[in-house]
Amino acid sequence: MQAEIIALGSELTNGEKLDTNSQWLSTELASVGISTHFHTTIADHIDEIVDQLRLSSQRSDLVLITGGLGPTLDDLTRQAMAELISADLVLDEESLHTIESMFQKRSREMPERNRIQAMFPEGAEAIPNLHGTAPGIWMQVPRTDSKPDCCIAAMPGVPSEMKPMFYQSVLPRLSRGTNIIRFARVNCFGVGESKTEELLGDITSRGRDPEVGITAHEATITLRIKAMGESVEACEQKISETYELIHQRIGEYIFGYEDEELEHIVVALLSQRVQTLATCECGTGGLLSYRFTEVAGSADFYAGGTVSTIQNILNQESLQTDSKQQTLDAAAAISLAKATRENYASDFALSIILDVNQSWQDNENVPQAFVALAAEGIELVEEIGLTVNRAIAKSRVTKAALNLLRRTLIDLGNES
Amino acid sequence: MQAEIIALGSELTNGEKLDTNSQWLSTELASVGISTHFHTTIADHIDEIVDQLRLSSQRSDLVLITGGLGPTLDDLTRQAMAELISADLVLDEESLHTIESMFQKRSREMPERNRIQAMFPEGAEAIPNLHGTAPGIWMQVPRTDSKPDCCIAAMPGVPSEMKPMFYQSVLPRLSRGTNIIRFARVNCFGVGESKTEELLGDITSRGRDPEVGITAHEATITLRIKAMGESVEACEQKISETYELIHQRIGEYIFGYEDEELEHIVVALLSQRVQTLATCECGTGGLLSYRFTEVAGSADFYAGGTVSTIQNILNQESLQTDSKQQTLDAAAAISLAKATRENYASDFALSIILDVNQSWQDNENVPQAFVALAAEGIELVEEIGLTVNRAIAKSRVTKAALNLLRRTLIDLGNES
Repeated sequence: MQAEIIALGSELTNGEKLDTNSQWLSTELASVGISTHFHTTIADHIDEIVDQLRLSSQRSDLVLITGGLGPTLDDLTRQAMAELISADLVLDEESLHTIESMFQKRSREMPERNRIQAMFPEGAEAIPNLHGTAPGIWMQVPRTDSKPDCCIAAMPGVPSEMKPMFYQSVLPRLSRGTNIIRFARVNCFGVGESKTEELLGDITSRGRDPEVGITAHEATITLRIKAMGESVEACEQKISETYELIHQRIGEYIFGYEDEELEHIVVALLSQRVQTLATCECGTGGLLSYRFTEVAGSADFYAGGTVSTIQNILNQESLQTDSKQQTLDAAAAISLAKATRENYASDFALSIILDVNQSWQDNENVPQAFVALAAEGIELVEEIGLTVNRAIAKSRVTKAALNLLRRTLIDLGNES
Repeated sequence: MQAEIIALGSELTNGEKLDTNSQWLSTELASVGISTHFHTTIADHIDEIVDQLRLSSQRSDLVLITGGLGPTLDDLTRQAMAELISADLVLDEESLHTIESMFQKRSREMPERNRIQAMFPEGAEAIPNLHGTAPGIWMQVPRTDSKPDCCIAAMPGVPSEMKPMFYQSVLPRLSRGTNIIRFARVNCFGVGESKTEELLGDITSRGRDPEVGITAHEATITLRIKAMGESVEACEQKISETYELIHQRIGEYIFGYEDEELEHIVVALLSQRVQTLATCECGTGGLLSYRFTEVAGSADFYAGGTVSTIQNILNQESLQTDSKQQTLDAAAAISLAKATRENYASDFALSIILDVNQSWQDNENVPQAFVALAAEGIELVEEIGLTVNRAIAKSRVTKAALNLLRRTLIDLGNES
């Protein structure tokens, strides 16, 4: 089964807005084994839209349309679909009633122009919209060469209306493809992209089933697994076999799956132990505390933190560091972590030192960064090698701190 | 002049990757007066690509292609372009030499398969690529109906190679359209979307020239101005007239233009006065300090800060707040700001109180938030009305704090 997706709107073709619906729909179709071979975005011109629908409905089994269902003059989807099958637009009383009552609920009268949203090409079906006034349209178009009818589903362009409509009313009408596709992700930290490729070896070879791709984002390495099979179970079996192999080769760097970030794992581990974290950041401006406290349920495990600058820290007499030096070192990072743990009476304290003011011109002169962890009987510090990519330095060092705590919490868990 | 854009790659049609090149190119074309009426994304199938090129090159004056120029078997752009004009692929010695020397610079031998990147449809031109091995392709295709030739430019899919190639080698070859388009943005805070629309009145009416649209993102209101004219100067004249009108009607809410955020303005105002800020955050987890310190050059004006939780603050005996109460109020916010200013010996101190733990079920029960500012002879506090949209609460309150400081700094500037 071949699908294609059409997005309507001049705000998309002129670059004012980015279409993300087509990508989302492709992923959803892939997960039920339907492959997408075209995305098309068209400006609001009726003739061009009709031409495209004519072409698409002949070459594809399924055409999904987003946008162009609003009440204004530049919303042309229903007119174009009617013209495609040379049908008139006819009023659907039930849809009209639904739209009118939506306005009533908001204590407003329905403007006359919204009436068009209850009109459909004769022979087409209305698709209910639970989140907005515009119903979708379902239509089947005969094809030449004795091919089966092409199914067309038109949905609103607003993602919050389109997605529930797709799940509730479009997906159930689609015949499944023969090859189901399932995606999975494995997230790693503390290893580079090319080192990962080297360690994984043949697992990443082209044409392997499941396919394994490597992407890097702000020092997090993500392995993307794509499995194809005759059933969901067959795909999941293949994915779990590939998990096994990946664990054997780079298990020590894996911290999570799918959308999991380091902070989710750290909060989960702390909540198991009912223990707290305090933070001291010098150069990351609060990124560590922000990421930690963004995790739902983290508040009970956060004791508090400070955000400082290198100069402020150097001025603090209390810090056990050589007062003549102009930068901070590993010993300073440990002192900060210990002082922070004491100040906040927390179980764990993380400190970060990243001198963002240092000159950062070339490979020779990349500043070093330190992360340290203090806990009962524990003092750990790591020097973090930064690359010239200054933009991700704060994120990389913040992740290194979270990873240091994560590994420590896992070791402590294994000991007990 | 009508343009269209084609993006090639199965990783785009199957949803693995999002195409952002087409949007970027549309905006660039619009800014030189060329309008785009189609975006098409095609999977890596040679016949479908050739069919699409045939259609596109007949209906459009300009076709921009991204992707499919790599050395592997699924990179099909050059083969499809050759097939379109029934030409052979021929080797361009100069391009081959350039590619070979790129590999030499990295001390690697050029793999044989990269040789294909130096091959072009007979009659087409190579477009130099200063950032990668794949040269682009420039080709002119005759059209029926005595229309002028269609120009096709193929560029790499990697944005960091595509964008410089577009600027250096594609844009200079394009004949400008008749109607230049210029975009501008005005950023406001402290006013809602519908109130903005009401205050602006006829400025936002459909069909006005320049067009003014309103968008909201995390409580920042952005006015998007789109001016069309025969020259850049004509557009800019229109934009500056519209600026004037907008200032008359909602000037008090405007804080910046284009990419400017509240923190950029605050850092600029503090640097003019050579004064410092300290922060105390309770419920925003460090978002305020992070945004402030992310601004280039902010380090000299940041004195430091603390990140805390409601419970920790309530436990602090030093805080002048009724110890029996279970939440924090406006007086607590002022106390925190004053204490923070003292601790860090800063000129200004901002405090935030946002109780993220409070139940947040319905409109009746939305927690209140407070931001306070302390400075020499200044104590200000604001209660921030939150909406049920919990996801943006941290961002909204952080911006409210920055805006309080911004307005105070402007008042101080006017006084002196």
